[in-house]
Amino acid sequence: MSFPSWLSQLYRGLSRPIRRTTQPIWGSLYRSLVQSSQRRNPEFSSFAVRTNTCGELRSSHLGQEVTLCGWIQYRRQNTFLVLRDFHGLVQVVIPQDEKMPTGEIEIKVKTAELLNACKKLPFEIKDFMKKTEALRLQYRYLDLRSFQMQYNLRLRSQMVMKMREYLCNLHGFVDIETPTLFKRTPGGAKEFLVPSREPGKFYSLPQSPQQFKQLLMVGGLDRYFQVARCYRDEGSRPDRQPEFTQIDIEMSFVDQTGIQSLIEGLLQYSWPNDKDPVVVPFPTVTFTEALATYGTDKPDTRFGMKIIDISDVFRNTEIGFLQDVLSKPHGTVKAICIPEGAKYLKRKDIESIRKFAADHFNQEILPVFLNANRNWNSPVASFIMESQRLELIRLMDTQEEDVVLLTAGEHNKACSLLGKLRLECADLLETRGMVLRDPTLFSFLWVVDFPLFLPKEENPRELESAHHPFTAPHPSDIHLLYTEPKKARSQHYDLVLNGNEIGGGSIRIHNAELQRYILATLLKEDVKMLSHLLQALDYGAPPHGGIALGLDRLICLVTGSPSIRDVIAFPKSFRGHDLMSNAPDSIPSEELKPYHIRVSWPTDSKAERAH
Amino acid sequence: MSFPSWLSQLYRGLSRPIRRTTQPIWGSLYRSLVQSSQRRNPEFSSFAVRTNTCGELRSSHLGQEVTLCGWIQYRRQNTFLVLRDFHGLVQVVIPQDEKMPTGEIEIKVKTAELLNACKKLPFEIKDFMKKTEALRLQYRYLDLRSFQMQYNLRLRSQMVMKMREYLCNLHGFVDIETPTLFKRTPGGAKEFLVPSREPGKFYSLPQSPQQFKQLLMVGGLDRYFQVARCYRDEGSRPDRQPEFTQIDIEMSFVDQTGIQSLIEGLLQYSWPNDKDPVVVPFPTVTFTEALATYGTDKPDTRFGMKIIDISDVFRNTEIGFLQDVLSKPHGTVKAICIPEGAKYLKRKDIESIRKFAADHFNQEILPVFLNANRNWNSPVASFIMESQRLELIRLMDTQEEDVVLLTAGEHNKACSLLGKLRLECADLLETRGMVLRDPTLFSFLWVVDFPLFLPKEENPRELESAHHPFTAPHPSDIHLLYTEPKKARSQHYDLVLNGNEIGGGSIRIHNAELQRYILATLLKEDVKMLSHLLQALDYGAPPHGGIALGLDRLICLVTGSPSIRDVIAFPKSFRGHDLMSNAPDSIPSEELKPYHIRVSWPTDSKAERAH
Repeated sequence: MSFPSWLSQLYRGLSRPIRRTTQPIWGSLYRSLVQSSQRRNPEFSSFAVRTNTCGELRSSHLGQEVTLCGWIQYRRQNTFLVLRDFHGLVQVVIPQDEKMPTGEIEIKVKTAELLNACKKLPFEIKDFMKKTEALRLQYRYLDLRSFQMQYNLRLRSQMVMKMREYLCNLHGFVDIETPTLFKRTPGGAKEFLVPSREPGKFYSLPQSPQQFKQLLMVGGLDRYFQVARCYRDEGSRPDRQPEFTQIDIEMSFVDQTGIQSLIEGLLQYSWPNDKDPVVVPFPTVTFTEALATYGTDKPDTRFGMKIIDISDVFRNTEIGFLQDVLSKPHGTVKAICIPEGAKYLKRKDIESIRKFAADHFNQEILPVFLNANRNWNSPVASFIMESQRLELIRLMDTQEEDVVLLTAGEHNKACSLLGKLRLECADLLETRGMVLRDPTLFSFLWVVDFPLFLPKEENPRELESAHHPFTAPHPSDIHLLYTEPKKARSQHYDLVLNGNEIGGGSIRIHNAELQRYILATLLKEDVKMLSHLLQALDYGAPPHGGIALGLDRLICLVTGSPSIRDVIAFPKSFRGHDLMSNAPDSIPSEELKPYHIRVSWPTDSKAERAH
Repeated sequence: MSFPSWLSQLYRGLSRPIRRTTQPIWGSLYRSLVQSSQRRNPEFSSFAVRTNTCGELRSSHLGQEVTLCGWIQYRRQNTFLVLRDFHGLVQVVIPQDEKMPTGEIEIKVKTAELLNACKKLPFEIKDFMKKTEALRLQYRYLDLRSFQMQYNLRLRSQMVMKMREYLCNLHGFVDIETPTLFKRTPGGAKEFLVPSREPGKFYSLPQSPQQFKQLLMVGGLDRYFQVARCYRDEGSRPDRQPEFTQIDIEMSFVDQTGIQSLIEGLLQYSWPNDKDPVVVPFPTVTFTEALATYGTDKPDTRFGMKIIDISDVFRNTEIGFLQDVLSKPHGTVKAICIPEGAKYLKRKDIESIRKFAADHFNQEILPVFLNANRNWNSPVASFIMESQRLELIRLMDTQEEDVVLLTAGEHNKACSLLGKLRLECADLLETRGMVLRDPTLFSFLWVVDFPLFLPKEENPRELESAHHPFTAPHPSDIHLLYTEPKKARSQHYDLVLNGNEIGGGSIRIHNAELQRYILATLLKEDVKMLSHLLQALDYGAPPHGGIALGLDRLICLVTGSPSIRDVIAFPKSFRGHDLMSNAPDSIPSEELKPYHIRVSWPTDSKAERAH
């Protein structure tokens, strides 16, 4: 992300908005932010009392009478003003004697009206990076004046508008609003509750319109979308919001490739013009490949440093612990190559990498300098034979100055560890000055063929859905549901951008019997809570599937913002507080009565005993 | 509203969705619902496994190979099918021997795949008017298949899309999402509460983005809109929903006429093509005129029957009670003329009208037949002199067969009563067969110059805001705030359609001092809860104003639906229940613990004492 430097000057200080009826004489040129990033040219002054924005006037307006509204940027001796709005700024001269300031155009004042005063601002708008985020959130209405927030929110609006055009006008999707006051879903432990006026009865704010979108398919609204507000109560988590927005899509008579093409077209169509165009189709990897190559199901594919399986090199090794590992089932030796690691990484970096591996994965990491002219800096290095060394150089494609990080262990564990180190080292190399990830590059990736079930954390002999229980099994794996359900793959797909999951979806189960079997027999869920959905599937539900894109995260990545809070007008702090209005707030107990609830204060039980 | 009769046949019964790879030979023509109501032609089969919808094939497709997906409408001896989706239906023949059914085109099956089965439906989709609404809501996913629901939801989506194009693409508005988890507003007794994980702290679901939209203006996002989900807990009220949607708009540097033109253009641009175009500008009446002429601030201007002040006719009357009324301050004699009332109204109608007036308004209503050849059917009739009769005929413009309803009393009360009777009589006349209100007519009206304050119901010597405390006073009445605030008019405006308020807004106060004076001194509110807003006004807030349109009500009127529940995909019942999923529902007390609340059962206090 880079911005023209003159723009940062726009927001130096806010003073009085002023209305002027004026005649331009000369002026300096300022480019309008929004005009330049749109193909069509909306009328930004329609219905308003101004005739033009402050960023719009050119020498072609010479002699015209205009009305401008804006904030005073500078004032010099009551004769010279710079007037500003969020489209740009313009010089204004209050006629006294003849002057000739610089610039091509300026406004000669006929009448001027002071519309409001302005107290001293709690911080300068100019340079918001120096303020604490708490201060920015407390005075969010001032922070919104910053160039970055104006850019982010306007870009978000435009991108969503293009998505709607694509879905609604080009492809016949129907925008349907679904309720947010709903019923608790089974296992919906992260759902906010909303007490009703009936004693003991609660609505729940759903985490997604999942049930509704499937019911719409049963209802024959066969191409649905919604820019849907969703809720998730996760307590305090950095860079999560208790309410967030997703582009929610569902369609009937579609398969996985249909949804993938739809989304590729959607992103291509809505992509901002000031970025490089999106290239489609996006590459696809399976979950298994992603884990083996990147150690994660959301690989950042902007750079290499892939995980390489080097087990075969060590089949006949004399190194004891490698022998041990390779003799076990799923035992492997893996490595990643850190480009120019010998140049950029310090000894203490290698030490902290080894400590991280030991602490979090109980794994040994061996740094190896494979190429000539380097000291073998690792205890096992001397046991690596020359033929092995040459084979490793070939397999890992190492260059002089590269460092190889080697680990041995169970396949998944070794991959996960190296996946984490791959990202850690990329960050390290970049803080040391290497350009590893092109900031203008947007690298999309589909991840497919996820497992349908995972072992439950509390009880690994029981199953839970890897995503949600409505996900259809992979067509080739349906028989496994009745024999080895753990091995069944799903028709779930994730969309990954630069290492972030920005969307996920699946083909759904449309057969009531199969859905009942999975819910009741495999997942041991109480099907009563979902009886309406099961019943709906019984009434001629069409095959259907869909996806949801995380809008906040997507816009965050597109604008290169450090946090999703920078693409939301009024975000909550990471503790879920609105620092501007002080929400959540105390409520008089009188106002809780209609909802038949009382606060259980942490000391309540004691207090009650005392009564 | 009228629909082609063939369409109601589409939804006779739902059976199995089926996928077919086929060749068209002959066929019957069916028009596609959505195609006919759109100017552009979206691709309804992109990304799906079908090549065409069932409503799309014409004789020009003869010989092409197509893939269709749909539900079986009829089946005859496994040789002849009608396949249906929500765009139309088409005949399909499974080749056996040569047949020649009626119609221009049909599909010859190559392969067919049964995609799902269908249980016997709980009701026929064909004719939904015969079902109870409870049954429709319980099986909403089936009810959505009805022609009317498909039409309503697709029209709603298209109309909102046009509104977005107008605001965003044509006029540079920025679509900004504002939070729904917020802080309780002063006097926000109708706000749902959302317990947080901090003991005793609650979010609140706001009734509108009012505070946020004003803060956005302070933040320099000077043309904002949002299709905003709002919440209002009013307990059980017919034709209200606990969550609803408004088209929410705010802009800076604008006056009342600017907002009015914006909205007129918005409705004109987004109006469905199958209706008569919207004519702008809309007429405007003041609140005072509306009350005097129609007895309400939301007049139905599709028909006449206006309230006429006939006090002057009776200045010298001998009728005692009229003398009495006219001698009092604000005492008036008023009347409305019921066209052909003598023909359409029955004696018992007149009796129930008089009873209604006596019961609800403590007012006397006198029915008067002013024209010749009718019996004077009223006790005072004989006291009306011939000159008075002629003057009344002239003033009221009565025709033979008309009935005049006359009342005498305090101005506001007499107007309110006659306003109610005007609507009652219009309904009555229409049930008796008169066409008074053209069902294709959409009659918009602006109502302006509302009072800024009203006397509080609990304590009439105190004031409350007629709308909300951020409404700016009328520029001519600012001095009255300091002398006679009750007399001050506001810059609030309502938009009325066919007697329904479909929108309201105002120019807001942008001066912090004035806002503080109104909140603290006139309204005696606790300004602490609004300190963030007051502070924001202090930092150079621009003049601004806005409006909100009630989307559910607007679409309800446009589609001619009996209830807003018919334009919402998954509405709540009038008791606020989701009859499909059974929300709100009980929650295990275990799940209330993280929110530090307990249910106060109605018997709790007794139960506790027993412990």
